[in-house]
Amino acid sequence: MTAQAERQDELRTERTKLRRVPDRGAHDFETVARILDAGVYCHVGFVADGQPYVVPTSYGRNGRSVIIHGSAASRMVTTLAQGVPMCLTVTHMDGLVMARSAFHNSMNYRSVLIVGVAEEIPDSEKMDALRVVTEHIMPGRWDETRQPSARELKLTTLLRLAIDEASAKVRSGPPVDEADDYALPVWAGVLPFALQPRPPVADERLAPGIEAPPHVTNYSRPNATAEGSV
Amino acid sequence: MTAQAERQDELRTERTKLRRVPDRGAHDFETVARILDAGVYCHVGFVADGQPYVVPTSYGRNGRSVIIHGSAASRMVTTLAQGVPMCLTVTHMDGLVMARSAFHNSMNYRSVLIVGVAEEIPDSEKMDALRVVTEHIMPGRWDETRQPSARELKLTTLLRLAIDEASAKVRSGPPVDEADDYALPVWAGVLPFALQPRPPVADERLAPGIEAPPHVTNYSRPNATAEGSV
Repeated sequence: MTAQAERQDELRTERTKLRRVPDRGAHDFETVARILDAGVYCHVGFVADGQPYVVPTSYGRNGRSVIIHGSAASRMVTTLAQGVPMCLTVTHMDGLVMARSAFHNSMNYRSVLIVGVAEEIPDSEKMDALRVVTEHIMPGRWDETRQPSARELKLTTLLRLAIDEASAKVRSGPPVDEADDYALPVWAGVLPFALQPRPPVADERLAPGIEAPPHVTNYSRPNATAEGSV
Repeated sequence: MTAQAERQDELRTERTKLRRVPDRGAHDFETVARILDAGVYCHVGFVADGQPYVVPTSYGRNGRSVIIHGSAASRMVTTLAQGVPMCLTVTHMDGLVMARSAFHNSMNYRSVLIVGVAEEIPDSEKMDALRVVTEHIMPGRWDETRQPSARELKLTTLLRLAIDEASAKVRSGPPVDEADDYALPVWAGVLPFALQPRPPVADERLAPGIEAPPHVTNYSRPNATAEGSV
């Protein structure tokens, strides 16, 4: 393989290769990172007592790994800390694709799926890891707020999942109809969707004279779509 | 138990009871249905070769069940059709909760988790089930588009998951800080997020004179938040 082909297939394994519509997919780190950086929450899959569970949770990307966290008492975190297989998926819903036939209705989206085993982040690195997650979700906020106490760090379990086996899937653009259907007198196109911040709502207990800082009023995510979706 | 308490705990089982922060949770059908109806895509969890996978897909609610579908060739659909345990989760991210301390940053959200085993929908009911999914996602569209051919129905596998074991989780409102931290000179509050439709984009191949119909231009989801999020 050429170096370029190797990079393209870098995160492709038997478990993450795309079986269907492979032209919608990618296995290179840059595409995966771009989709991860646009998002603030993921869905984590794990198995407990033979039953799969899918739980939403926040995350941050730190180079070639994703960090998640939770109460040391949560089932998700205690299960994952045992080193069981997990899956972490991030999805951005970018639009409803309305075709001339019901069969070809679809959605535009960007998603990433990572499989692997998480490792628990040791105490000495917890502060850094929490900073990564906070700054991923709310860039600029860490330095403006009270940082975690020793007790708070103890109550938090942080997990690191390496981005070694992953796939990205992207659908964009107009509907694809059957050739005969283009003549139908049916409106077709895309209804774009965007997940966007609205005006901030100050805490009622906020002391007078404290204005929302730029990291709140100018909040934006990287790699948004043309429609501004994160 | 009183009738009301029975209704409240109706979908609660050992697998769906909320272990932490139970006051954020509910197990009644109406709360679960309301959150499902606000959404158009879910994350499905299943296990293949010992590895959990979490895959985004569209869905529709039909009374006390959720219908999903996919190509008869997809791994998700073929795995689930075998009757293995699955989990279906819907999440709405309603806002970033910014506290005075990093530890108490949070998110406002509404989510539903359903566990169970899907059953494949027989051929005779496929047309109805596809209509349910289409009308859930794009209300008003089914009757305006070409309906599926026998061949298209054959290419589609539809699955029904009963809403028998489920939980809902909701966080809303301002940050909750430590008593001492309220005196800090830090802005705190909520940055609401909303997933909303943008102006429709007509297919470039649309025949002249076809205007976007009301089900496109007036698109809205039921049970949106005050901020309009779906």
